[in-house]
Amino acid sequence: MMRVLVTGSSGFIGAHCLCRLLSEDCEIHAVNRAGQGENTARVTWHAGDLRETAQAVALIAKIRPTHLLHCAWVATPRVYGHSPENADWLQSSTALAFAFGAHGGVRFVGIGSSAEYDPGELPCVEDETPIRPAMIYGKCKAAFWLAVQAAAQHHGFSAAWGRVFLPYGPGDPAQRLVPAVLASLRAGKPVQTTHGAQKRDFIYAPDAADLLVRLLLSPETGAFNVGTGHATTIRSVVEYLASRCGRPELLQFGAIQPPAGEPPVLVADTTKVHDRLGWSAPTSIYKGLDRVLNSTSPDMARQTSQGHDHTAS
Amino acid sequence: MMRVLVTGSSGFIGAHCLCRLLSEDCEIHAVNRAGQGENTARVTWHAGDLRETAQAVALIAKIRPTHLLHCAWVATPRVYGHSPENADWLQSSTALAFAFGAHGGVRFVGIGSSAEYDPGELPCVEDETPIRPAMIYGKCKAAFWLAVQAAAQHHGFSAAWGRVFLPYGPGDPAQRLVPAVLASLRAGKPVQTTHGAQKRDFIYAPDAADLLVRLLLSPETGAFNVGTGHATTIRSVVEYLASRCGRPELLQFGAIQPPAGEPPVLVADTTKVHDRLGWSAPTSIYKGLDRVLNSTSPDMARQTSQGHDHTAS
Repeated sequence: MMRVLVTGSSGFIGAHCLCRLLSEDCEIHAVNRAGQGENTARVTWHAGDLRETAQAVALIAKIRPTHLLHCAWVATPRVYGHSPENADWLQSSTALAFAFGAHGGVRFVGIGSSAEYDPGELPCVEDETPIRPAMIYGKCKAAFWLAVQAAAQHHGFSAAWGRVFLPYGPGDPAQRLVPAVLASLRAGKPVQTTHGAQKRDFIYAPDAADLLVRLLLSPETGAFNVGTGHATTIRSVVEYLASRCGRPELLQFGAIQPPAGEPPVLVADTTKVHDRLGWSAPTSIYKGLDRVLNSTSPDMARQTSQGHDHTAS
Repeated sequence: MMRVLVTGSSGFIGAHCLCRLLSEDCEIHAVNRAGQGENTARVTWHAGDLRETAQAVALIAKIRPTHLLHCAWVATPRVYGHSPENADWLQSSTALAFAFGAHGGVRFVGIGSSAEYDPGELPCVEDETPIRPAMIYGKCKAAFWLAVQAAAQHHGFSAAWGRVFLPYGPGDPAQRLVPAVLASLRAGKPVQTTHGAQKRDFIYAPDAADLLVRLLLSPETGAFNVGTGHATTIRSVVEYLASRCGRPELLQFGAIQPPAGEPPVLVADTTKVHDRLGWSAPTSIYKGLDRVLNSTSPDMARQTSQGHDHTAS
């Protein structure tokens, strides 16, 4: 039977991947720092700090997963983009990927990012758009995908890479765009954002997890965009949330300067995913936002209103 | 005063870089496993195995170089292209680059490779030709250049990357093309090669070192080709050596199958180097081969005749 290890399984995307895996016929292993999590009837939890190379390698030797979905990485909102921890993750994850192959692993999927691309204003095409990451995060993710390919080549396992665009949905960290705006609206506080004209490919996190798990279970190799193919302005997302909360007067577009060099458009071309995996995102942005609106209580949201994060994951 | 550290300073390219640095007004530090080398009046030698992350970081903390020319990497002929040691070098070199910045380093130059490119049949242009390395070596080198850029961004130092094409010259390891062919010719043994139609950019190693040191002393950032811009077939290099040794009857082209996927053409576009550094390679291939012929004794060459290595460095 497949023995799947999900790293970062308490993180935003990792938790959705773990949830999605429950519907598959496989042995599931998960790792976080506490070694504890949900669904203990189906999931075997392990404690580990995968930034530590020795711990990463020891975990692989212990579990000997056949399938590895590597979601763990620095992801703290507002910090991850320029954190030097990205370099620690690059080093320990490289050791993890080689250890995976050395211990009989057959299939690896890693979480990449739209931040690897130099997008211009066109949709990003996996094997055409230049990989020229602006942030330290994108540089280290792109470097890691090269290291994964090196490990796959050396050990003969199969590897794919999912470049996630802008995920949102249940479990979204409080400082990121959707929960932060929603928390402000519900608290009756002004919502200060940039001009909001940036076009982004918002993907409902459970959809992203669905695609990543399908990729894990497929034989397809290479990089794949994890997006919807649809461009939505940040402004229209914020306006929709304000309208649904009945508080459009709280919006203050242009109150914050966008970061220098922020791309005006960051949208996935979904041709490859559609052609090779027959997949397209089932949840439209407004349907996804409706689910977020219905599932988060105003009380929960109020605790964590601290600002906005427009950065792509 | 500039405090320059050269790593891999007993290796083929590193030794030439160290030699070239002697003509510059700077404090020179060098590292190899033995901690011993030439020119001790000018060069301070340190012992260290830079594949070990802890040793790499400790060395930087001890020397605190202002300038780092990082030549160390796995380079064993016939082995380096597919060695898993490349991943160890990626990890420890990433730590080295971040430690360099953390300890006040201002200028970093690393040794990349033409093997990072997916060349097609055209000359490789630094910021245009796709980076799609075929070998584990090229993948880990390309990954490291991304990590260097991340370190430079985080710590604010200046960084460049020299993608070396096919170096030859004094100190060339015995198993590589020129010394191996020469040793066979001088021993009167058959020279078995591939068809030899592959076009390569052969660069005289002291010229490569000159460009790398100029790059180190310049403020230019980004990737630069270290080549001549001239395409020479492997056949014509081998024929020239045989002709100069008076043994053309020993040549057996086509006796060896070229590796699958070996690029037919791997030649540098030198526009960027010329425009930004005003440099072009002073030594033509035949002048360089003449120097090799005149400087290596038949006795030395005979000891090490074991085959040929056509792979780009």
